[in-house]
Amino acid sequence: MFTQKLIKSLARPTPSKIILCVLDGLGGLPHPKTGKTELETANIPNLDKLAKIGVCGLSVPIEPGITPGSAPGHTALFGYDPLEVRIGRGVLEAVGIDFPVKRGDVLVRGNFCTVDKNGNITDRRAGRISTELNASLCPLLEMTIEGVHVLTAPVREHRFVIVFRGAGLSPEVTESDPQVTGVPPSPVKALSSKATKTARIADQFAKSAGVILKNKKPANMILMRGFSRSPHLSSMKEVYQLKPAAIATYPMYRGLARLVGMEILSTGTSLEDEIATLKKYYKNYNFFFLHFKKPDAAGEDGDFGRKVQTLEEIDKFIPSILNLKPDVIVITGDHSTPAILKGHSWHPVPTILYSQFCRSDEVTEFTEKACLRGGLGTFPAAQIMPLAMANALKLNKYGA
Amino acid sequence: MFTQKLIKSLARPTPSKIILCVLDGLGGLPHPKTGKTELETANIPNLDKLAKIGVCGLSVPIEPGITPGSAPGHTALFGYDPLEVRIGRGVLEAVGIDFPVKRGDVLVRGNFCTVDKNGNITDRRAGRISTELNASLCPLLEMTIEGVHVLTAPVREHRFVIVFRGAGLSPEVTESDPQVTGVPPSPVKALSSKATKTARIADQFAKSAGVILKNKKPANMILMRGFSRSPHLSSMKEVYQLKPAAIATYPMYRGLARLVGMEILSTGTSLEDEIATLKKYYKNYNFFFLHFKKPDAAGEDGDFGRKVQTLEEIDKFIPSILNLKPDVIVITGDHSTPAILKGHSWHPVPTILYSQFCRSDEVTEFTEKACLRGGLGTFPAAQIMPLAMANALKLNKYGA
Repeated sequence: MFTQKLIKSLARPTPSKIILCVLDGLGGLPHPKTGKTELETANIPNLDKLAKIGVCGLSVPIEPGITPGSAPGHTALFGYDPLEVRIGRGVLEAVGIDFPVKRGDVLVRGNFCTVDKNGNITDRRAGRISTELNASLCPLLEMTIEGVHVLTAPVREHRFVIVFRGAGLSPEVTESDPQVTGVPPSPVKALSSKATKTARIADQFAKSAGVILKNKKPANMILMRGFSRSPHLSSMKEVYQLKPAAIATYPMYRGLARLVGMEILSTGTSLEDEIATLKKYYKNYNFFFLHFKKPDAAGEDGDFGRKVQTLEEIDKFIPSILNLKPDVIVITGDHSTPAILKGHSWHPVPTILYSQFCRSDEVTEFTEKACLRGGLGTFPAAQIMPLAMANALKLNKYGA
Repeated sequence: MFTQKLIKSLARPTPSKIILCVLDGLGGLPHPKTGKTELETANIPNLDKLAKIGVCGLSVPIEPGITPGSAPGHTALFGYDPLEVRIGRGVLEAVGIDFPVKRGDVLVRGNFCTVDKNGNITDRRAGRISTELNASLCPLLEMTIEGVHVLTAPVREHRFVIVFRGAGLSPEVTESDPQVTGVPPSPVKALSSKATKTARIADQFAKSAGVILKNKKPANMILMRGFSRSPHLSSMKEVYQLKPAAIATYPMYRGLARLVGMEILSTGTSLEDEIATLKKYYKNYNFFFLHFKKPDAAGEDGDFGRKVQTLEEIDKFIPSILNLKPDVIVITGDHSTPAILKGHSWHPVPTILYSQFCRSDEVTEFTEKACLRGGLGTFPAAQIMPLAMANALKLNKYGA
């Protein structure tokens, strides 16, 4: 590891199809009362059957012990080095609202905040103003400074995205959010010589925002953090010779897919909608990233029962996916979200890979313990794409 | 990984003996009718017994999902980094016919081809002329250009090897084989400034060949590809302090062994011959690379039954090998060649390591599934040599 260059040199275009199903937050931990994990509790006959005919394992998103955010978790699943590819907070906020990011844009996470008459911060979140108010304030802040366009877009409550678009910009600057109240916003400083222009423009923007928002208390100032630029990633078309499409109900996952050049297929908000979208476009692509958000959301809420239920719901749709007869289907997650931890965790993620050539193992059910005995062993998540490509017969032989 | 430097620093010469048995293309996939792999189908009591007393595992030749050619597959088995060591097509063709390669030689795979009166290629393989005709044409093409000797040697049918021998050569040039018909051979162009001389000489050689072969239709022109130079590898003597010997019926494997400094023992064409050669020279060396080609050949032909049969044949010779009482015996393959895929594959290779000190596991039969539960786990093939060295007590302690 790391082998993306190697894969790129061996990839060949073929019509064979791969479906990568990401059950967000899939892996879990035992419930203290039953001693059973979410997967062990759930009644998931279709996933069990797939585990039986496929080859199983536990994927490690980043490194043992490392709990990934959604961005590195997916970066690894798409076969990119999650320690090399850094997706900053500003970029993630922007892709999370489907903002049409351009190469070179410097993206920033903005907060509306409250300052007193001396300019000291009294509330870093401006009393969590409504998203509607946020949306009405954002357009006031669009301007051009030294030829650089400053664009804005509301996210939720006090959060918004700031985009600096123009030549000669760099994200290597300090943040204006001091993370405490009672002090004024910090000046933005250049961390490298190529960032002096960006620092100057960002500072000018903050000053102008203060003037524009003067009478808009509680949202009478802004704070900036997470200056970042979208990473220059080779597209999945370039790396894998694939024609890839993404189906996801949450914008952040669509945004991550867009960063690696997937086509984004518009879909509804339910599992049914996602499967219908898959069927509708099945002929047009040879790789599908199918994202199911619900297990993670239930895990984050610490709702063990609801996580079990979402797994059972997803299980019911497995036959519809298999009926499409993809050459390769992968069932995995971007990380574990054990309900008892109420958050992402570092635990390896149960994974099934099925193809005609997968060399099945002795696993007969889809649980953390069973996958531990699987043919894939405990392996880096970034190896899922090479394995899927191999099983789809999309890789040439290495060496003479 | 990669640890060859470490091994080199710890290796010590001892009389203990290692036998590395490579069953080419060993691993397989289930037959659609029986659901059993070739190994699961074969009656191999001696290998099963060895699996029981040895420690087992599944070796990954290169990386998960990567299907290796024979060269990188063996490079890894000999304990060299298969992603670092690149053995080009020209080198492989040359070593494959036991051509005495010299350091600095630029080696090229040549094809006799047919061109029409305008010089456009009509058959890239010259109607697959006989090997005899090839052998009679090759000597006509030997010449000296700008002090560089151009040597040739027939391979089979239309294939031959071209050797450019002299000072200041580089393999960094384009190929003359355009891979299509209806166009003339491509000019050879330098890909780097140090290759201009080589490109000029190769072009002159092609022109001269055209003149010499003018009336030899269908073999009235030549095409060149796979310009390469033999890699500068430390010998196994240097790395491991071993006195190594190779026993192989196919010249390519002898050639690969020669690249890492093994002595090549002349042998016959059968398994019996190979075992007899092993016995004959057993006292003279402390490492033997014993290559069995047949499982791969049967797998490549898609002949499941014959692959099973060759495994059963090899099994019968295991006692003769064990009777020599080697300190370490390894049974493995350079890659899998499942009959249902009719070619090399990416699947991990069943492996047994037996020594008095191997720390056996619970595996009692030699199959893909059983090896998955073995003490070696699923591990990089390049770790086989360090493990064999350790089990032969040929490695000093690391650190104070």
